[in-house]
Amino acid sequence: MQIDFATAGRIIFGAGCIKDLAQIANGLGKKAFLVHSKSQPAAQKLPNLLKSAGIDCVDQAVQGEPNTASIQAAVEKARNEKCDFVIGMGGGSVIDTGKAVAAMLANSGDLMDYLEVVGLGHKLENPSKPYIAIPTTAGTGSEVTRNAVIAVPEKRVKVSMRSPYMLPHVALIDPELTYTVPPAVTAATGMDAFIQVIEPYVSNAANLMVDMFCRDAIPLAAQSLPAAFADGANQEARNAMAWVSLMGGLSLANAKLGAAHGFAGPIGGMFPASHGAICAAVIAGVMQVNIQALRMRDAESRYLQRYAEIARWVTGNPHAEPEDGAEWMRSLCRQLQIPSLSDFSIQPSDFGSIVEKSQQSSSMKGNPISLERAELLEILTISL
Amino acid sequence: MQIDFATAGRIIFGAGCIKDLAQIANGLGKKAFLVHSKSQPAAQKLPNLLKSAGIDCVDQAVQGEPNTASIQAAVEKARNEKCDFVIGMGGGSVIDTGKAVAAMLANSGDLMDYLEVVGLGHKLENPSKPYIAIPTTAGTGSEVTRNAVIAVPEKRVKVSMRSPYMLPHVALIDPELTYTVPPAVTAATGMDAFIQVIEPYVSNAANLMVDMFCRDAIPLAAQSLPAAFADGANQEARNAMAWVSLMGGLSLANAKLGAAHGFAGPIGGMFPASHGAICAAVIAGVMQVNIQALRMRDAESRYLQRYAEIARWVTGNPHAEPEDGAEWMRSLCRQLQIPSLSDFSIQPSDFGSIVEKSQQSSSMKGNPISLERAELLEILTISL
Repeated sequence: MQIDFATAGRIIFGAGCIKDLAQIANGLGKKAFLVHSKSQPAAQKLPNLLKSAGIDCVDQAVQGEPNTASIQAAVEKARNEKCDFVIGMGGGSVIDTGKAVAAMLANSGDLMDYLEVVGLGHKLENPSKPYIAIPTTAGTGSEVTRNAVIAVPEKRVKVSMRSPYMLPHVALIDPELTYTVPPAVTAATGMDAFIQVIEPYVSNAANLMVDMFCRDAIPLAAQSLPAAFADGANQEARNAMAWVSLMGGLSLANAKLGAAHGFAGPIGGMFPASHGAICAAVIAGVMQVNIQALRMRDAESRYLQRYAEIARWVTGNPHAEPEDGAEWMRSLCRQLQIPSLSDFSIQPSDFGSIVEKSQQSSSMKGNPISLERAELLEILTISL
Repeated sequence: MQIDFATAGRIIFGAGCIKDLAQIANGLGKKAFLVHSKSQPAAQKLPNLLKSAGIDCVDQAVQGEPNTASIQAAVEKARNEKCDFVIGMGGGSVIDTGKAVAAMLANSGDLMDYLEVVGLGHKLENPSKPYIAIPTTAGTGSEVTRNAVIAVPEKRVKVSMRSPYMLPHVALIDPELTYTVPPAVTAATGMDAFIQVIEPYVSNAANLMVDMFCRDAIPLAAQSLPAAFADGANQEARNAMAWVSLMGGLSLANAKLGAAHGFAGPIGGMFPASHGAICAAVIAGVMQVNIQALRMRDAESRYLQRYAEIARWVTGNPHAEPEDGAEWMRSLCRQLQIPSLSDFSIQPSDFGSIVEKSQQSSSMKGNPISLERAELLEILTISL
């Protein structure tokens, strides 16, 4: 077991910490490229906040998950405007857009030169321009990961641009920014965060560091996600979920994930569903089938012990068995009104293609046990 | 509660990971300044290891805890040799020496320009040259902190050189390097590591991040330190203590400490005793008097609850009270044959001066309760 841990240069976390942005950005340059989502009112306050530090903003509103065209447009604008650094404020889509722009500002050439799978997959030569990532959802933890997920619509796939240079300089996590997130988004993003501390804990790349993040966050998520969904004004639950999201980002960046994320990439490329919603739709099935496969083929597995630990943390029952954890997760999804795969117009006739693509994904390779084709189909059937 | 977390650019942890040094150092430059302790045989292998990556080494052996003269000599040599980066392999003294050299290589002027208290306390203008810190004891956790502790013999004090720029680029922690540490050093350095996860957990600057490190490490240290002391060949215990040491460094760099470290600075400046040995000599007394003061002046304190948690983790008794933790620590010190203050020729007539200086220390300001002069004297008396 060897750990090779790296994270954002600075992680600032705390309710209200956005007020320190000007001070944090001070010294990074005179002109910021500000990426935000169209629907994010808090971002409108940033240009004024930054003006006090003598920083001008070039504004870029983005909508939906990033694709090659939206990133290229943003990169072109940031290059033309000769921006010194980047600030991204929004959900995972915005944070990833900012990451790609900060990288391309410091490196020559075209986006496709650097994309995995569909592009040339070149390594970034130069460190990214400074990037301050400010998440407004408790979800992806993308503020502390080193890749941007980008859709390639014409090929119906999502691919990563990935480099150690893409870790943001500053991850600024202000839970207050999540207080107004509506329940359905709280559910989908929160499940993403939750799953990002579950899959690494049972992944075959688990390590002491990531174990620590997951042990800290799993019990907290089990308590706080239902509470934040039921009452968005519950600040304690919101703050806790912002923390869980950060722990998820730290975990996935420093271990592997598993079958839920293995499915999410391909399905997200093929159907118009958010990453978090897809992960949420399949997680109970993934846990159930993983546990079943482990019992059959690796009954003494330490992964079964870990699934039992998870079951005990989430149910609060010190005698819970692995299966109880999967069942608890199914009931949480019902409680959070998580859509099923059929709600995204996925049909059994799509399963073959989904399974084929997901078997190639890097997340699937982190799964605690290698699942057979029939088992992957079973997960999709359960999740339909 | 706001967290502002930063750490080494990369933390590599794992038994045997030193073998990857050439690969890790690749790209940092052609000439390394290699600081190590005179008694560290493993360091002798590094020049050959680095040659394979085309890196030359300028060798610098150091002895004892760093002082202004030893640092200045090292800085002068590294500057004259125009070294590109620094590697430090040894205990906390060596790691701190390397940190100061890496900083001074990238900044002009004299060491005294940058020292707190006795010097001008200037801020470093430029980021340090790349620095790879390789601890060979499980103790200070200095590989992930942003200061170097330097003795100023003519003033009988120890002061810090401190900057965010002093966080090493790479912390390379190979527990195998600690397997040959003799029992007395295992005890003193191990107690330092242990105390560095206890004091932040009850400090008034505790936060979610540091809490996580401490919760992970305290139960581990309670089990592993006696085991590593009793049998230095117990690899599991050695690996665990290397982890505890890392957690201690992460904790103290991102929270505050307390009275044990508040005493250690001044005493270390006045008497020839190692930092770890002093912390160990006073910790049981510090815990006892802190708990006593909290019971008297702040009986509903959350710090008492934290002391109770610590007591439960270390004793394994779910009903343990705070005082049981202090008592357990006293018995651990006996088991580890920790010297008492009188073994360092400290006498009651020195107490007044020690108390006066320690009241000014930054660590003392992190203590869970402000201790009165009589209480500080009581700790010293107990620890004599």
